[in-house]
Amino acid sequence: YSWARKLGLVRKPAGFLSSISDDRGEELVYAGMPISQIFSQDLGIGGVVGLLWFRRRLPDYANKFIEMVLMVTADHGPAVSGAHNTIVTARAGKDLISSLCSGPRFGGALDDAAKMFTRAYDSGLTPEEFVEKTRKSGKLISGIGHLVKSLENPDKRVEIVVEFAKKNFDSTSILDYALAVQKVTTRKKSNLILNVDGAVACAFVDLLRGCKLFSKEEADQYVKLGSLNALFVLGRSIGFIGHFLDQKRLGQGLYRHPTDDITYFLHDLPTN
Amino acid sequence: YSWARKLGLVRKPAGFLSSISDDRGEELVYAGMPISQIFSQDLGIGGVVGLLWFRRRLPDYANKFIEMVLMVTADHGPAVSGAHNTIVTARAGKDLISSLCSGPRFGGALDDAAKMFTRAYDSGLTPEEFVEKTRKSGKLISGIGHLVKSLENPDKRVEIVVEFAKKNFDSTSILDYALAVQKVTTRKKSNLILNVDGAVACAFVDLLRGCKLFSKEEADQYVKLGSLNALFVLGRSIGFIGHFLDQKRLGQGLYRHPTDDITYFLHDLPTN
Amino acid sequence: YSWARKLGLVRKPAGFLSSISDDRGEELVYAGMPISQIFSQDLGIGGVVGLLWFRRRLPDYANKFIEMVLMVTADHGPAVSGAHNTIVTARAGKDLISSLCSGPRFGGALDDAAKMFTRAYDSGLTPEEFVEKTRKSGKLISGIGHLVKSLENPDKRVEIVVEFAKKNFDSTSILDYALAVQKVTTRKKSNLILNVDGAVACAFVDLLRGCKLFSKEEADQYVKLGSLNALFVLGRSIGFIGHFLDQKRLGQGLYRHPTDDITYFLHDLPTN
Amino acid sequence: YSWARKLGLVRKPAGFLSSISDDRGEELVYAGMPISQIFSQDLGIGGVVGLLWFRRRLPDYANKFIEMVLMVTADHGPAVSGAHNTIVTARAGKDLISSLCSGPRFGGALDDAAKMFTRAYDSGLTPEEFVEKTRKSGKLISGIGHLVKSLENPDKRVEIVVEFAKKNFDSTSILDYALAVQKVTTRKKSNLILNVDGAVACAFVDLLRGCKLFSKEEADQYVKLGSLNALFVLGRSIGFIGHFLDQKRLGQGLYRHPTDDITYFLHDLPTN
Ligand SMILES: CC(C)(COP(=O)(O)OP(=O)(O)OC[C@H]1O[C@@H](n2cnc3c(N)ncnc32)[C@H](O)[C@@H]1OP(=O)(O)O)[C@@H](O)C(=O)NCCC(=O)NCCS
Ligand SMILES: CC(C)(COP(=O)(O)OP(=O)(O)OC[C@H]1O[C@@H](n2cnc3c(N)ncnc32)[C@H](O)[C@@H]1OP(=O)(O)O)[C@@H](O)C(=O)NCCC(=O)NCCS
Ligand SMILES: CC(C)(COP(=O)(O)OP(=O)(O)OC[C@H]1O[C@@H](n2cnc3c(N)ncnc32)[C@H](O)[C@@H]1OP(=O)(O)O)[C@@H](O)C(=O)NCCC(=O)NCCS
Ligand SMILES: CC(C)(COP(=O)(O)OP(=O)(O)OC[C@H]1O[C@@H](n2cnc3c(N)ncnc32)[C@H](O)[C@@H]1OP(=O)(O)O)[C@@H](O)C(=O)NCCC(=O)NCCS
Repeated sequence: YSWARKLGLVRKPAGFLSSISDDRGEELVYAGMPISQIFSQDLGIGGVVGLLWFRRRLPDYANKFIEMVLMVTADHGPAVSGAHNTIVTARAGKDLISSLCSGPRFGGALDDAAKMFTRAYDSGLTPEEFVEKTRKSGKLISGIGHLVKSLENPDKRVEIVVEFAKKNFDSTSILDYALAVQKVTTRKKSNLILNVDGAVACAFVDLLRGCKLFSKEEADQYVKLGSLNALFVLGRSIGFIGHFLDQKRLGQGLYRHPTDDITYFLHDLPTN
Repeated sequence: YSWARKLGLVRKPAGFLSSISDDRGEELVYAGMPISQIFSQDLGIGGVVGLLWFRRRLPDYANKFIEMVLMVTADHGPAVSGAHNTIVTARAGKDLISSLCSGPRFGGALDDAAKMFTRAYDSGLTPEEFVEKTRKSGKLISGIGHLVKSLENPDKRVEIVVEFAKKNFDSTSILDYALAVQKVTTRKKSNLILNVDGAVACAFVDLLRGCKLFSKEEADQYVKLGSLNALFVLGRSIGFIGHFLDQKRLGQGLYRHPTDDITYFLHDLPTN
Repeated sequence: YSWARKLGLVRKPAGFLSSISDDRGEELVYAGMPISQIFSQDLGIGGVVGLLWFRRRLPDYANKFIEMVLMVTADHGPAVSGAHNTIVTARAGKDLISSLCSGPRFGGALDDAAKMFTRAYDSGLTPEEFVEKTRKSGKLISGIGHLVKSLENPDKRVEIVVEFAKKNFDSTSILDYALAVQKVTTRKKSNLILNVDGAVACAFVDLLRGCKLFSKEEADQYVKLGSLNALFVLGRSIGFIGHFLDQKRLGQGLYRHPTDDITYFLHDLPTN
Repeated sequence: YSWARKLGLVRKPAGFLSSISDDRGEELVYAGMPISQIFSQDLGIGGVVGLLWFRRRLPDYANKFIEMVLMVTADHGPAVSGAHNTIVTARAGKDLISSLCSGPRFGGALDDAAKMFTRAYDSGLTPEEFVEKTRKSGKLISGIGHLVKSLENPDKRVEIVVEFAKKNFDSTSILDYALAVQKVTTRKKSNLILNVDGAVACAFVDLLRGCKLFSKEEADQYVKLGSLNALFVLGRSIGFIGHFLDQKRLGQGLYRHPTDDITYFLHDLPTN
């Protein structure tokens, strides 16, 4: 053996380490569970996300919640910059993946809301103190505020998410905290409600922390790794692909931005 | 007005045409359906895909079938080239979207199988004629054949897909045709079964053609636009994101391919 | 040894084959030439492209020509779809590479012009026959025509490219052929001149075929592999990066396309 | 006019601001200079980069230096992760741009070296103090150190860059400072020389600061905007495209990473 090692024949340590799936056996396995079993137990997309992202079979209500987040984030119309670029690229005749990849996607709002509310809650600030402290530092609270929706005209999506979490989760400490924050902010202005990003983000932290399948450190690590952002990216892919198919179906041609919507600022340059 | 037009003040025709969603009103709308209603009717991810890609509320069994396809295609282990590139990019410290976009994804097998079986069926070839004709042209039938699975050791996923389609779809003409083709090919060799790509592809064509919500032309157009490929791309995104999160969690460092696995073929060049 | 092989210890054939560069030695080598020598011989960017794309030291005039192509294609203003997407992505706060990769780029015009003129020339069509044949098939000749430039108001870039090729290349058969085609088309309309894409494409084919470093098959293969398209992609990267830096410098914020420039076509849908 | 404004007919402020090029006139213009003039003045690629990235005609030695950087960074063999992914994607049958965009690229080393040396120089630290301070903070100095090259076996590329800067630049303060730092570090170990990244980065800062075309603030802003990183990205694109063409020419098929080089770590999971 040492002879073989010297000749460089022995197996080196593997170049890759992978811990979520295995395609080498009789049956494809996601996080230890054979694919046929995933179907027979009817895990759904949420369950598959649970297995491949969190390496475990999450409870059914968690799977359902993941699917709710994907549905909420699936699209936000053709005007936002990500969909816009997808559309422009599709109209340039590029393929689906090139079009999909050309659209910037941001789940930052979710990540930021999760971080702000969790940190405030963990550090023991009262809702009033948190609002005051954020205001003093000149920042807005991510997850608070909506241009149209308000206490009087509530966002049905928020109601659905909150109701679902309250009914199914073991704990909703962060979400409750965020709702208490909403009480403070809406005193100032009625549209400073907990918005859908805020509700989803807080409920998600509650889910990971409360479902008894993760230690607190693990739960927090998954948030830090960007799993909320990942949900947004996956969900919004549905919409971007929709816009790609839509443009192809409508037969829209190459886009060129109208030059009269561009200010060409070159007059400070010497006419060489 | 003509004065305004002359001055170039009148509204030009819009630069974009979009027909799947609307974010301008009180509530976000997917294909005419407000998001709150999408939740209250419990459409699920499949239903959202139906609205945003096919512009209509598909029947529940169709939504369920779409979700089955996403689950089946979600991942195929870390060795395939798409997951591999995603992993290498994640290890290079890039962000989620850059990593996700670096992985080549292929739904070509699904598209090809759909095309081959549909065309054969529509042109009235008997299964025997189809198999013979393909053999003579020196091609393989996409969607037929598995390295491990066979008549004796059937693929459970195929059974699930076929059973689901038979039970729920209005028609399974293409799928039945493919199963008849399987009868012919397995006479030659027992592993030349209808594989999961083939089963999914044929069932999907049956779904669009049979659900009474599309004309035959529309159904075929949707397949031609690449909606099967799109399902694969969306589904596999789940796995790629899983690999991204996995590598970050495992703290894997920058990858450099071992030079002894590369043949540097430069000896034909002059040593300048 | 056979013992080692049996134990699976022997080296497998390498997974990769690579023939353009080598970084394993004392000095980095491009196509057999050490980097220090590349500098001492003053090969320039054109020379480096020659080594890494064509695996040989091209003559100086060829290197110079490659650089001319990169300069001509470097940018075409902020309105074209590729620059537009790059700008939108930069304004979304994404990094340089994400922005660069979001912009669709097309060197198709060059590839098409090369293909059309070369094929016509090789098949022995007279310029008149070629023009007539293309007209009858209802196509335009790629590389012919300009919206502003004409015989009376010639495009200086074309003059520079043509003059350079005539002066330096061993042969300009395809370019001469294209100029003869121009004689025919401009009889119809004065702006149907050989445009810059056409001139570059034809000159490039002449360069590869005439420089005595490639067999005719090799020269044609390099065109078919897309090396003209590659020059465009590399050149235009300069412009896209310029637009990225420009937007960052100008501090432009997130772009959202104005909804009044979008026709939302959803009224055919049922209000579910 | 106020009537027109009320009717919403008046021109809104433009959606885009762009300051580097203009394609609307008779001739394409880069930073105020018509493309024909760019050729007649023989600006070269370096000159075009100067116009499009820095909005001005840089002196000839600056253009030359930019080209040197692009040549040095053009490729570093097939094993580095960026080239590796490009190769894998090319072998998956994807197009040039998808392949190019799949390869992670890092100009971080250049940016970091520029930042570290400039900051140390500007804050008035002696080379000894800088080395000591960095050592104490447990960091390495970016731009110092080479695995093979050393004082006794110098890197010819560094010599070329240094010699060029010394001969042509108005000032080489940062580069001189870095060479003084090298004197300190090589006392410890002979391979702790100023490497090619360090030499390029320091010379580039000297160039911008010393060429009298930028205020100090502007020069520093251009470095901060990532123009060094951008040079790396552009340069390395040459190599990635080379690898793409190479793989296509060699006809390499779909790559699948060998599963025996992957440790599948799933045994901690329950066999559900
Ligand atoms: C919706 C939104 C634009 C508010 O719009 P608005 O009704 O025009 O409110 P204004 O900007 O006039 O602000 C009114 C007051 O509320 C405060 N306020 C607004 N949003 C706030 C927030 N998110 N957190 C705390 N205070 C907020 C403002 O500071 C201002 O206080 P002041 O009167 O003391 O100066 C804003 O709340 C917002 O951007 N929220 C979304 C945050 C988020 O989740 N973003 C991610 C989405 S992708
Ligand atoms: C699985 C597979 C590799 C077969 O492997 P195998 O058991 O080693 O079979 P062989 O290659 O030895 O072929 C045995 C015979 O079956 C035939 N055959 C194999 N696959 C066939 C197919 N898909 N259609 C028709 N005939 C096929 C072969 O032509 C050969 O015939 P011959 O004996 O007359 O020459 C092959 O069927 C296959 O690639 N199928 C997948 C097709 C597909 O859907 N691809 C997309 C996947 S991403
Ligand atoms: C520049 C261009 C738009 C011509 O515009 P135009 O002056 O408005 O010309 P028209 O479209 O009115 O055409 C006038 C006549 O010239 C013919 N013609 C135009 N372009 C032609 C071409 N490239 N090849 C052959 N005939 C052409 C038209 O068919 C028409 O003939 P007809 O009168 O018999 O119908 C056109 O030549 C063109 O698109 N050329 C560019 C081709 C190319 O290289 N594209 C790649 C760019 S990315
Ligand atoms: C080349 C390199 C790996 C050194 O390799 P090495 O010869 O094996 O040196 P070692 O790691 O054994 O270090 C020897 C000593 O030099 C010091 N040293 C190494 N590199 C140093 C650097 N860049 N700056 C300061 N000190 C350095 C080490 O801290 C060590 O000190 P110690 O003996 O007090 O612990 C290292 O210098 C390096 O990574 N340099 C490149 C930095 C850079 O520009 N990176 C970007 C490239 S993409």
